[in-house]
Amino acid sequence: MTYRIDCLQYANWSEKVFRQMREGGVDAVHVTIAYHETFRETVLNFEAWNRWFEQFPSLIMKGQWASDIERAKIEGKTAIFFGFQNPSPMEDDIGLIEILHTLGARFMQLTYNNQSLLATGCYEAEDPGLTRMGRQVIKEMNRVGLVIDMSHSADRSTIEAADLSERPIAITHANPYFWQPALRNKRDEVIRAVTQNGGMMGFSLYPHHLKGKSDCTLESFCEMTADACGKFGVENFGIGSDLCQDHPDSVVEWMRVGRWSKEIDYGEGSASAPGFPQMPTWFNDNRDFKNIEEGLRAKGFSQKEVAGLMGDNWFLFFRDNFTPQAASS
Amino acid sequence: MTYRIDCLQYANWSEKVFRQMREGGVDAVHVTIAYHETFRETVLNFEAWNRWFEQFPSLIMKGQWASDIERAKIEGKTAIFFGFQNPSPMEDDIGLIEILHTLGARFMQLTYNNQSLLATGCYEAEDPGLTRMGRQVIKEMNRVGLVIDMSHSADRSTIEAADLSERPIAITHANPYFWQPALRNKRDEVIRAVTQNGGMMGFSLYPHHLKGKSDCTLESFCEMTADACGKFGVENFGIGSDLCQDHPDSVVEWMRVGRWSKEIDYGEGSASAPGFPQMPTWFNDNRDFKNIEEGLRAKGFSQKEVAGLMGDNWFLFFRDNFTPQAASS
Repeated sequence: MTYRIDCLQYANWSEKVFRQMREGGVDAVHVTIAYHETFRETVLNFEAWNRWFEQFPSLIMKGQWASDIERAKIEGKTAIFFGFQNPSPMEDDIGLIEILHTLGARFMQLTYNNQSLLATGCYEAEDPGLTRMGRQVIKEMNRVGLVIDMSHSADRSTIEAADLSERPIAITHANPYFWQPALRNKRDEVIRAVTQNGGMMGFSLYPHHLKGKSDCTLESFCEMTADACGKFGVENFGIGSDLCQDHPDSVVEWMRVGRWSKEIDYGEGSASAPGFPQMPTWFNDNRDFKNIEEGLRAKGFSQKEVAGLMGDNWFLFFRDNFTPQAASS
Repeated sequence: MTYRIDCLQYANWSEKVFRQMREGGVDAVHVTIAYHETFRETVLNFEAWNRWFEQFPSLIMKGQWASDIERAKIEGKTAIFFGFQNPSPMEDDIGLIEILHTLGARFMQLTYNNQSLLATGCYEAEDPGLTRMGRQVIKEMNRVGLVIDMSHSADRSTIEAADLSERPIAITHANPYFWQPALRNKRDEVIRAVTQNGGMMGFSLYPHHLKGKSDCTLESFCEMTADACGKFGVENFGIGSDLCQDHPDSVVEWMRVGRWSKEIDYGEGSASAPGFPQMPTWFNDNRDFKNIEEGLRAKGFSQKEVAGLMGDNWFLFFRDNFTPQAASS
């Protein structure tokens, strides 16, 4: 069986979006439930999802393990997996890592743009690598099966995390810097460190990460995919669309500024373009994954490679990395 | 009028300790009310102090401004000022800085040994200086009158904070590295950056910061004081004893490990000496400030200089730095 999996979305969730997931044949989505939230606020977001699962049982179900994706596909639903773009939900408490995993968290970024207690974000001027606490936290995340996500982290921190972690890590949503030199995109040495340790990277459809931004062509995106796969191995890539659907612009301001600054920080935007950018014409929402699939086929990927990129690679990664580490005997 | 002020204590507070403050003629103490506490937990510590103020009104009173020290002295009480050794009480929320100042906080360390969201601690391998959030927070602390304390911070972060801050900053409790080369003690360039901007440093009596540790002599301590004052100016120094009285050793473990690690971290101690060290014979508790005063006089400091070192220098610093910044017109 093959699966269609998107490893990052943050929509303004609604029945409409869930129906689009079904229409697009999406078997599993990793959804962000924390940007700057504290532990207690994150629990509120788990609660909100519990209500959606109760309200829309024919469309979505909670995803905890890869086997939930198999069940979702059979039952015609989308399995929803939870992740954090920031370690804020664990606050400064290493004991919360296991609690959050028990609640259903499966991905946690060690940083979101800024320096965290654990590592350095991609917008800081300098990156001294993992902190003392970061090294402890990686061990604990490995133990419980909470995947390290370095999408918004700085280069050295990412390479150190990939090397120190005993289990593969992920960059759930970003593109190669060689294609679009954005601060959020990843240099070759970073992608190499992640993929050579069995890690995964999800290609992003967020316009600031695309060559030509909103005007990026599907052909260019698929050519980048072919180049990256040629360099680092097709089995280490998938999609992490970073689809931020139906949100007002106030949400992207919250994502950027949280509570850390009283001044506006435009992040990947600018004073003249502070809001969410327009999506490329060929990827507006969950119904458009077929366009990417067609583009990849047209680019010359084999059927198996296309299936891997569209979800099967993430499926295998989920299968191997969400369960607790076997206790050493 | 002259004042006796200790700019850092963290005792296991009790009527006994408050009576010793009175016996020792201590007019004001800056007490630590947070090592790793969240905002809510810190509020519990403000509550605990409110109860002590209610229970022991003839011994202690809440200190908010330098004028409270004048009143305390007249009324025969000790004014208690609050501070944090870690920015944990503000969590990741810049808006909490003004709230905490309103509640009575007057000092906040930007880091406690480890990397924080704001700056680097003295035990990290590398120090990239202030973070993006740290720069925002310094502005806000300046605005409301919450003093930046860099006692447990790394060198570059401290120098950058001293230079960036529009108001003088403090190292409330540490000694010069030239006298006792401990990680927590401060190199000349750090002391220079703080003092040349009008900042203050409080000499510590905590054995790990003393030459010879628990065996340090009063003479050696006073000679170090004379050397530091000769180099950087007598008006920029005072006492920050770091007195940690009557605590069980479990408390020093909490101070070191908090919730950031599942492994023990011995900090300034070691596996063979994990607990609180024994205080030097000439400084056991609040009744022993007279010994230091006598030692400084014997060392040749003038009466005015001794008064400055024993409290008047801190008094002037409190007077100038606890009030909100004048709004620019």
